[in-house]
Amino acid sequence: MNFIAIQGEKGSYSEIAAKNYFGKKIKISASYSFKEVFDKVKKRKVSFGLIPIENSIYGSILDSFDLLQKNSIKIVGEINLQISHYLLSNKKYKLTQIKNIYSHPQALAQCSCLLNSLKKIKIVPSYDTAGSAKKLKLEKEDNAAVIASKESAKIYGLKIIKPKIQNNKKNFTRFLVIANKPQISKIKNPKSSISIELKSIPGALFKTLSVFALRDIDLVKIESRPLPDKPFQYLFYIDFIGNLKDLKIKQAINHLKEVSTNIKLYGSYEFGKFITN
Amino acid sequence: MNFIAIQGEKGSYSEIAAKNYFGKKIKISASYSFKEVFDKVKKRKVSFGLIPIENSIYGSILDSFDLLQKNSIKIVGEINLQISHYLLSNKKYKLTQIKNIYSHPQALAQCSCLLNSLKKIKIVPSYDTAGSAKKLKLEKEDNAAVIASKESAKIYGLKIIKPKIQNNKKNFTRFLVIANKPQISKIKNPKSSISIELKSIPGALFKTLSVFALRDIDLVKIESRPLPDKPFQYLFYIDFIGNLKDLKIKQAINHLKEVSTNIKLYGSYEFGKFITN
Repeated sequence: MNFIAIQGEKGSYSEIAAKNYFGKKIKISASYSFKEVFDKVKKRKVSFGLIPIENSIYGSILDSFDLLQKNSIKIVGEINLQISHYLLSNKKYKLTQIKNIYSHPQALAQCSCLLNSLKKIKIVPSYDTAGSAKKLKLEKEDNAAVIASKESAKIYGLKIIKPKIQNNKKNFTRFLVIANKPQISKIKNPKSSISIELKSIPGALFKTLSVFALRDIDLVKIESRPLPDKPFQYLFYIDFIGNLKDLKIKQAINHLKEVSTNIKLYGSYEFGKFITN
Repeated sequence: MNFIAIQGEKGSYSEIAAKNYFGKKIKISASYSFKEVFDKVKKRKVSFGLIPIENSIYGSILDSFDLLQKNSIKIVGEINLQISHYLLSNKKYKLTQIKNIYSHPQALAQCSCLLNSLKKIKIVPSYDTAGSAKKLKLEKEDNAAVIASKESAKIYGLKIIKPKIQNNKKNFTRFLVIANKPQISKIKNPKSSISIELKSIPGALFKTLSVFALRDIDLVKIESRPLPDKPFQYLFYIDFIGNLKDLKIKQAINHLKEVSTNIKLYGSYEFGKFITN
């Protein structure tokens, strides 16, 4: 049975993503932080880890990118999960009876339209959506609610005060499946992920993108992150279509070495399915 | 006298940046959020606003980028300020006597090496570094400390428990000066900032960068942000060297219109000085 490290508790969006990716018969290793997920994968305490890398509204999850860079970890898969937030409570309160609302800061931000419309409410950030649901159930706080998944309501026996309260219905989070070793992708046009540091030469980024354009390799995403010891210089993460095993891609990587340094190859993997709910 | 909106209280890094940029004879309009700064500039309640846009270790400040895009605001200047964090308290405590430490989440993260070495300490995130200093002084809490600037110690009469506690000494924040109207830059090689939305055509990003490379226009920074209504499609912010008034740059912008949409021009302004302390 696959043993999967995720950040958050049972009922978290990460768990829902993991079950959609691996199937329902998995064992979850709940972790407090993204770093803990990476550590468990590195030390082979789990078979895989699953981390959010990007939200379609908020953008890239920068901690995840930085942890990818710091750890010798491979990407072996991805999945896109539609995020539907529910307002949950111990009793079937009316909205006006709620005084405190707990959730992860991102979930709070994604429901700001509803939250801003409520008066005399205290918003309390917490480390996890499902964790807030678990805590609310345990502590039996009156007139309090949490923002979490529908699954959290089932798991912790909470009532749904209001369903689908996110500002934007087109709210997807992309999760990466990470492992200690690469998996050789046999599918035809997988996604591949790499990171590079640009050399200090004129037009370095243009030359980097030329490496791909000249070979008709399609880019999917490019993300820059700062180099801590070089103020305002950047590392680039690049996702493109192609298999790291293929000759054309190997030639591109060789060409990249002429215009960049510190090239890291994270792996080739199937494009993530979109799970709606 | 210039009236400048900043996020945070007197003694904040934004205030230090504003005084280095405009000189000491300015009036500060303290604001609770970045959005409030933008609102004050738009409604002409202040002459200028000053907002952090990027930290050399943490990376881009995404809220600032998103607010630039949402508001019809111009960029008229920038300044880079070295960030030196100090541990401050009401009394000259020893480190081991401190029980609670308050500060902005970014400041807390930037001092994680020291904080992780301390035992039995409670870390409490707050909305502002200088605001935490002000609150500590007012509430006279014993065995508590804040992480804030040296200037906050002077302004609020706090003792320095430990100076320069940031993990990385090369810690700079870049601030933008924003205004309601553009200022025409007369200097020779200013920085210019624009944002664009890529068209759904093959190699759109490569073609966009070609616009600059073909004209020997140097890029300074490129930052992508998600388009909320188009999951996993992006808007790009681009900083380059050149004046939006110059013919070559006007030709480049015209060329850009062939490969992108929703082009916004934020302005041309002098490269920011680096202020060390």
